[in-house]
Amino acid sequence: MQWYFVAVLLTILTSSQGILTTLSQSNGKYLYDYATVPFLAEVFKLLLSTLLLWRECRISPSTRVTTEWKSVRLYVIPSIIYLIHNNVQFATLTYVDTSTYQIMGNLKIVTTAILFRLFLRRRLSNLQWMAIVLLAVGTTTSQVKGCGEASCDSLFAAPIQGYMLGVLSACLSALAGVYTEFLMKKNNDSLYWQNVQLYTFGSIFNMARLVLDDYRGGYENGSWWQRLFNGYSITTWMVVLNLGSTGLLVSWLMKYADNIVKVYSTSLAMLLTMVLSVYLFNLKPTLQLLLGTIICMMSLHMYFAPPNMLVDLPTQVRAAPENLKEVAVERRTDS
Amino acid sequence: MQWYFVAVLLTILTSSQGILTTLSQSNGKYLYDYATVPFLAEVFKLLLSTLLLWRECRISPSTRVTTEWKSVRLYVIPSIIYLIHNNVQFATLTYVDTSTYQIMGNLKIVTTAILFRLFLRRRLSNLQWMAIVLLAVGTTTSQVKGCGEASCDSLFAAPIQGYMLGVLSACLSALAGVYTEFLMKKNNDSLYWQNVQLYTFGSIFNMARLVLDDYRGGYENGSWWQRLFNGYSITTWMVVLNLGSTGLLVSWLMKYADNIVKVYSTSLAMLLTMVLSVYLFNLKPTLQLLLGTIICMMSLHMYFAPPNMLVDLPTQVRAAPENLKEVAVERRTDS
Repeated sequence: MQWYFVAVLLTILTSSQGILTTLSQSNGKYLYDYATVPFLAEVFKLLLSTLLLWRECRISPSTRVTTEWKSVRLYVIPSIIYLIHNNVQFATLTYVDTSTYQIMGNLKIVTTAILFRLFLRRRLSNLQWMAIVLLAVGTTTSQVKGCGEASCDSLFAAPIQGYMLGVLSACLSALAGVYTEFLMKKNNDSLYWQNVQLYTFGSIFNMARLVLDDYRGGYENGSWWQRLFNGYSITTWMVVLNLGSTGLLVSWLMKYADNIVKVYSTSLAMLLTMVLSVYLFNLKPTLQLLLGTIICMMSLHMYFAPPNMLVDLPTQVRAAPENLKEVAVERRTDS
Repeated sequence: MQWYFVAVLLTILTSSQGILTTLSQSNGKYLYDYATVPFLAEVFKLLLSTLLLWRECRISPSTRVTTEWKSVRLYVIPSIIYLIHNNVQFATLTYVDTSTYQIMGNLKIVTTAILFRLFLRRRLSNLQWMAIVLLAVGTTTSQVKGCGEASCDSLFAAPIQGYMLGVLSACLSALAGVYTEFLMKKNNDSLYWQNVQLYTFGSIFNMARLVLDDYRGGYENGSWWQRLFNGYSITTWMVVLNLGSTGLLVSWLMKYADNIVKVYSTSLAMLLTMVLSVYLFNLKPTLQLLLGTIICMMSLHMYFAPPNMLVDLPTQVRAAPENLKEVAVERRTDS
């Protein structure tokens, strides 16, 4: 399976996630407890991965499965980072409004690339760095509040703590992604076994969150397992399955592609959601959405197109005879 | 003199043009007839170029001056194109509002590059084409109407004639630039002699416009020469000198650099004006201005940076062994 096929599928599923979630509401309200959705998605991913691992072990006995605690315990770290991230997110929102938070969320595109370079030691060309910044600029452009929109708070008016927490949030989000990539690639373990470990911890942490919410709320709505499927419609189940599937695709990309591919995939999904929303929910198309889409498409091309498609290499090659001589000498000694 | 020095000077002068023009108003109104400004600027350029030509001829007798009518008559064409352009502009504004017209004006960045390629047969790399589109996208982004702004007409609501005229306007504007570059580069004539020809026709056409305005207005305000300096302040004179100087710099760039350099210079000047206006006129900085500026800076770097600064060429060279072998063989036969 080619990585770009998986990336396109992830883009489509991620963008349907937003639309399905909107469709699962009744009159703008959730009839079900939204916090149960990520939990069920984790359980879905865990069950499916277990099934696939079992099948893989039966077909090929050479399936690699590292069961040492020293290795297994590493898989709890992404869950811990997400837990911290959720709390930072909550703290940030006490300083800035939702739209400013959303705008700052685009920073994670840049922080992911920085951690990708620092922790995974992957080199990016100058042009690729520019493409990354342009992707963040493009997604931000599409979110610029147009004239006629309700909220008009200035982005530049939040207290400094808000911005610092926003940057921290972007760093944590990037760290979770980069760490997961490190985990998935650190050995040749079966993808399904790696998933089983990730999602076991994921399910536990999500369950803990539901328990904690109940405790904090004084069991007003009863315990979480009593209302687990309350108000669930077909659409809600589709939201769960969709969220689970995107998670599995991200895992695959972390092992066989990388974080940058994931970042492009989810950023383009955000734009696709906005474009589809214009048609589905009869919204007005905005100039900033058009501009943001053009910028992100350019960025995509800049990042992934082979350099000789972008610049005229033959002239370049002749312009740098020192490098060439070196290569020519190498070739001479080869033959 | 290096072209980038002239380009930076042009950027600064062009951006002060907007600010000086605003400062030359009293309570948002012009106390003088604004139509006299371009005329006086043409006369200023004509006088200065004549003086410089005379000095050049005295110093170096080999100064090239082609005085055949067959050559001289070509210098009327830019003036004619500008005349048509002004009328198309007027017609466009009957279909679209000023802000839509301003947004569509960014199209001339792209049309200039297209005519530059078609008429002057100058090749651009794919990356340079992308940079051009990004420049247009960046300037447009900075002009997106923010929330809280008065006019809220949708850009996508104008009649089709408006868009067609807007495209025609962008093509004419590009044509004038590309044709001027062709004129300036077609022979080794003295720049000052070429200027004298350009600005003689320019002065005549501008004067004709003043005469026509008077005729259309039924001589209500008297003849144009009677009110030529009416209401002129020091600032107004600075507007005239500034407009004249930018014209002379553009001429220089057309001969010794090219249209793309001019396009970058004037686009960045627009952004600089907006940034300076935030400080000078106490306007609120907008997110779209910040984003537009980042996009244009990226575009500038993409267009002008040497390709080996943008992409990792050595890896590239090793990735394409077919090309290399060819070059290696060439080198072998050379030695």
